[in-house]
Amino acid sequence: MSQTASKVSVGIIGASGYSGEELVRILLGHPGVDLTAVTSRQYAGQTLAQIFPRFASNPKARQIRFSEPNAELVARQANVVFLALPHGVAAEFARPLLQNGCRVIDLSADFRLREGSVYKEFYAHDHPAPELLSEAVYGLPEYYRDKIKSAVLVASPGCYPTSILLPTLPLLKAGLIEPGEIIADSLSGVSGAGKKAEVDYLFVECNESVRPYGIPKHRHLSEIEQEMSIVSGSPVQIQFTPHLIPVNRGILSTLYFRLKAHLRADPGLESKISGAYAGYASEPFVRVLEGKSLPDTKNVVGTNFVEFAWRVDPRTGRLIVVSAIDNIVKGASGQAVQSFNIMCGISETTGLV
Amino acid sequence: MSQTASKVSVGIIGASGYSGEELVRILLGHPGVDLTAVTSRQYAGQTLAQIFPRFASNPKARQIRFSEPNAELVARQANVVFLALPHGVAAEFARPLLQNGCRVIDLSADFRLREGSVYKEFYAHDHPAPELLSEAVYGLPEYYRDKIKSAVLVASPGCYPTSILLPTLPLLKAGLIEPGEIIADSLSGVSGAGKKAEVDYLFVECNESVRPYGIPKHRHLSEIEQEMSIVSGSPVQIQFTPHLIPVNRGILSTLYFRLKAHLRADPGLESKISGAYAGYASEPFVRVLEGKSLPDTKNVVGTNFVEFAWRVDPRTGRLIVVSAIDNIVKGASGQAVQSFNIMCGISETTGLV
Amino acid sequence: MSQTASKVSVGIIGASGYSGEELVRILLGHPGVDLTAVTSRQYAGQTLAQIFPRFASNPKARQIRFSEPNAELVARQANVVFLALPHGVAAEFARPLLQNGCRVIDLSADFRLREGSVYKEFYAHDHPAPELLSEAVYGLPEYYRDKIKSAVLVASPGCYPTSILLPTLPLLKAGLIEPGEIIADSLSGVSGAGKKAEVDYLFVECNESVRPYGIPKHRHLSEIEQEMSIVSGSPVQIQFTPHLIPVNRGILSTLYFRLKAHLRADPGLESKISGAYAGYASEPFVRVLEGKSLPDTKNVVGTNFVEFAWRVDPRTGRLIVVSAIDNIVKGASGQAVQSFNIMCGISETTGLV
Amino acid sequence: MSQTASKVSVGIIGASGYSGEELVRILLGHPGVDLTAVTSRQYAGQTLAQIFPRFASNPKARQIRFSEPNAELVARQANVVFLALPHGVAAEFARPLLQNGCRVIDLSADFRLREGSVYKEFYAHDHPAPELLSEAVYGLPEYYRDKIKSAVLVASPGCYPTSILLPTLPLLKAGLIEPGEIIADSLSGVSGAGKKAEVDYLFVECNESVRPYGIPKHRHLSEIEQEMSIVSGSPVQIQFTPHLIPVNRGILSTLYFRLKAHLRADPGLESKISGAYAGYASEPFVRVLEGKSLPDTKNVVGTNFVEFAWRVDPRTGRLIVVSAIDNIVKGASGQAVQSFNIMCGISETTGLV
Repeated sequence: MSQTASKVSVGIIGASGYSGEELVRILLGHPGVDLTAVTSRQYAGQTLAQIFPRFASNPKARQIRFSEPNAELVARQANVVFLALPHGVAAEFARPLLQNGCRVIDLSADFRLREGSVYKEFYAHDHPAPELLSEAVYGLPEYYRDKIKSAVLVASPGCYPTSILLPTLPLLKAGLIEPGEIIADSLSGVSGAGKKAEVDYLFVECNESVRPYGIPKHRHLSEIEQEMSIVSGSPVQIQFTPHLIPVNRGILSTLYFRLKAHLRADPGLESKISGAYAGYASEPFVRVLEGKSLPDTKNVVGTNFVEFAWRVDPRTGRLIVVSAIDNIVKGASGQAVQSFNIMCGISETTGLV
Repeated sequence: MSQTASKVSVGIIGASGYSGEELVRILLGHPGVDLTAVTSRQYAGQTLAQIFPRFASNPKARQIRFSEPNAELVARQANVVFLALPHGVAAEFARPLLQNGCRVIDLSADFRLREGSVYKEFYAHDHPAPELLSEAVYGLPEYYRDKIKSAVLVASPGCYPTSILLPTLPLLKAGLIEPGEIIADSLSGVSGAGKKAEVDYLFVECNESVRPYGIPKHRHLSEIEQEMSIVSGSPVQIQFTPHLIPVNRGILSTLYFRLKAHLRADPGLESKISGAYAGYASEPFVRVLEGKSLPDTKNVVGTNFVEFAWRVDPRTGRLIVVSAIDNIVKGASGQAVQSFNIMCGISETTGLV
Repeated sequence: MSQTASKVSVGIIGASGYSGEELVRILLGHPGVDLTAVTSRQYAGQTLAQIFPRFASNPKARQIRFSEPNAELVARQANVVFLALPHGVAAEFARPLLQNGCRVIDLSADFRLREGSVYKEFYAHDHPAPELLSEAVYGLPEYYRDKIKSAVLVASPGCYPTSILLPTLPLLKAGLIEPGEIIADSLSGVSGAGKKAEVDYLFVECNESVRPYGIPKHRHLSEIEQEMSIVSGSPVQIQFTPHLIPVNRGILSTLYFRLKAHLRADPGLESKISGAYAGYASEPFVRVLEGKSLPDTKNVVGTNFVEFAWRVDPRTGRLIVVSAIDNIVKGASGQAVQSFNIMCGISETTGLV
Repeated sequence: MSQTASKVSVGIIGASGYSGEELVRILLGHPGVDLTAVTSRQYAGQTLAQIFPRFASNPKARQIRFSEPNAELVARQANVVFLALPHGVAAEFARPLLQNGCRVIDLSADFRLREGSVYKEFYAHDHPAPELLSEAVYGLPEYYRDKIKSAVLVASPGCYPTSILLPTLPLLKAGLIEPGEIIADSLSGVSGAGKKAEVDYLFVECNESVRPYGIPKHRHLSEIEQEMSIVSGSPVQIQFTPHLIPVNRGILSTLYFRLKAHLRADPGLESKISGAYAGYASEPFVRVLEGKSLPDTKNVVGTNFVEFAWRVDPRTGRLIVVSAIDNIVKGASGQAVQSFNIMCGISETTGLV
């Protein structure tokens, strides 16, 4: 239990939800981390072991106690701080943490958008810390690895955006698809709704049920379109429909792309698509399925992998791509730790496999 | 939609939970019922169709609106009133309803116990209407059919007690088992916890989980032991352990009985057990399984049936009985309507098959 | 149990799967039906009650025994015969049944296509009874009610097609959407895979899992495109992706339509859409949701209803429609009985509510 | 990927079921293991990555291919061999492996019983290798750690027995309970039934269902009673009822014990019980819950922990203990690796946390 000088002292603010619990799980097992502060208004004074019975036999979890969320205090205990807080609340904590010299990885949506005006359009209130937007780096390692290295503020991507952007961006970049014709149909496990005591997320309301929500303008659209627009070089608007399905974890996104007209009869089409994805061969957490395999959330749940498969439909001229992630790992806490590893010069997969 | 004179006007107070919704379902389809009042503080002003989308195409459900729960008002609209309220609250409504001439069928625990002192022991407060306890009839039709006929106040049994009492009482009555050695191990679907916004009953907390609770002294023990004691002729104490399992509906109770010592070597043992259950052959909602069949909640969910099977274990001298019911139907609303039919002289299975 | 002259004698060939069991359930409770023959190679000799424990207390189910599937024999016992058999097998039974004067309602895909060549393209073998294709009526009551009345052979629609066609056909008919730009993204419960002993459909393989299959050319495409083409007046090709989700029953289809260009700025657009669906107001089993309501499979499971809601997305110029059905009821056995009622001049909702 | 001399070369025979897959998972990540052979008749020639998509990105899983199950061949490749085969088949492989100098860890029931006659009573055929029974060590590390160290043949315990024995043996040893009055009521996830293509274990048959089976004489009784008898010093017969519940993984056992009569009024009773369990404080995978905590399978799934809690019921004089394990980890593959670590002088928790 003694900490060596080489470990990074880490804090988590807002550690009581599902993403927070997963951060705790990953960081307790991370050899480069010394978890020095975890906060929760609700659980202050209790140990991690008491609140998360799953970790009850972990000596560190029996020792570490939740404290009240106090940015200044946490800043004295940790060099890197994860924020696992609701949208709107995270920004309030980021400012003092940064002022006190911490590097911050925010799992909320607060710093994902480059423009305060887009934030206001989608989140219906003024951005709480607009001066920090230009400092934030979007924490999608496959696209922003270099910027993440030196970032002081990382905005870790949303779960839906992660499942949609990773299979889409290479196609946009390679100019294979019509940017204005993208449809993303996504299915999420119930943990995506958070650990909130609401009737809608009771077992009886979700089990033996499947339902759409947030049609047609879900908040996550804003960051998806922002990143697609950047890669495309011009504004992209997409269609996005999220659904709630009765699994604890996992997002499956089925993506419909219109192939550029000149490619439909191109005999080299399939190798162009493979080529667009070739860069992912060196990515530690991206898996492009081959042959007849199709994604299944059960193959990625509990891991930081995204897996996807693609099919050309010659009848319709569309390219169909289906991706799967664990919404709490690659879609939240795992990806945040991936950024953490990059920021700290630690091997990127540490603590994640 | 015109009401004929032969229909009974019926009200439901507290119709917003799972038992209330099931009462609505059954009573909307009941040919002898004119549903004239349904109350819910939370939903007052809205139609049944708006709150319960499942009934959205039912013309009556589109017409009937929830009103504020007001006993006097309901008493003017209905001759028979179902109370689907939390324990402790039901009694407050029962008194004015009875004073205003209604007959009352209470689904809560408020009137199930004969002694206010036992109520206080198990529910930790004085009984709110002790003067009514002697008027109440325990609404287990298989045992109290005659009293139910003329009852003005029926205390409909709890879900666990129904699943345990029906297979046990005949054995006690026939003197086949040791009354002091009964163990009931019960598994309940999550609807048994009600439609409460509590973290413990969120999908993610219940799915892929099974857990005991209320050990060793669950409130339902009181009515189970009361009814067993009555049939036994002397006080009975049993062991009872409820568990929560990830299904919407259904209770499975596994019952362990010690056979009386003189019966263990009795070659007529099995026919004595069959004989004890023979009376159930004429019961419309009791199914004693034969041959190799064992109960499965999926065979009774959505119905008012209890099914059970029994096995003698010659190695241990025990009799094992396993029973299954739908906790919301035979364990709550269905059984309450069964009592209603008896009270009103309607064929007992009306609206229930 | 005595049968009156007014009842129709009915047989079911292949009653051992999920659709067969549901047919049994509906027909046992149908006041206009005398169920005279049920066949199953596997269960011949056993009663319905023995094979389907859910019906164990139903006197008819305790009496009726499965027989070997013999078309001539069944033709002597029944005037109307339901075929709940695998694709390819149904046609073999239909021919002798029709020759012996029965009217036939086939739940398989064998008679849904008008052209044997399309059948061969999608089912990979010659049609087993091409001479009957012209006699068959597609059993979607909302579109073929008049033809169903006098049909001798009804091809009851597939589950996915039902969920997709009912919300789409009115839009095509009204000319509101581009016929060449339709995308249907569907989620099905596991009962859709049938009661087959295959590892892929084991509990452990399906629970906590969601996965696509049959991309990009599922067999059901053929009947969907056929019916859309008929209404459109020209060939329609659509995009269709089915997925398997961990629920027993239910299909949710999310449909993406491109609005005709001239309608995008039309202030009357929403009322035109409402108008297109206005005809459904008189349909007994179609529910167009209003206000903020969105479909949820749990609101239709166990019923013969389809419910759907629509949203215009002004950002993208698309119309999104989401529909929900019970794949075994409106998607199979319930819809087949709806056709039966129409064929026999019985009120269309009999046995279905 | 280079193997150091210090790694143990390991084989798995029968690696295609759920326990086999879990062994693969654990051993691929085990720093002291060089997995040199995995066999499967069904999958011979394919890589682990192809058959288990979850491991598709693991370089070793992409390299290692299933071979035909051939004991002699495996013996040349591995020093320690795990058998994850059906009962009755494992023994055939154990003999040649042992003859060729391998140490064997068998996950089946073949070597768990000391007496061939008991095997025959419960498994209904002669033991296939009775001469090996005396060599086998029952692989419950908490009780046989020393013998496991030097064992050449370890019979890894069954899942139900593990969940029952660990909480029971200390009570028997301390003489606190009546050995003849033990009742074990157990609930198992569906993976316990194996990866067999049988209708009974289809998603639709298990979901929204709970059912008992194997009443009253399940095969696992034999090893449970054997081990209890050894600790008691005289023959013990218990009551055991297994049930199937709709979760993938996890066993919850609720155990009913009759306290010795002289202890019922003993004010030191609770400390005696605590004392009986005190030895578990040093066990790396046993967690005795304190305070108000009760077990929940979700707290142990995916881990090698057993957790349990106990309650005295002063009303009935019984002690209730509830335990939870992951049936595939502590109940199968994890516990087998725990034995492996002990056999090989590797730290006992290696690869398991």
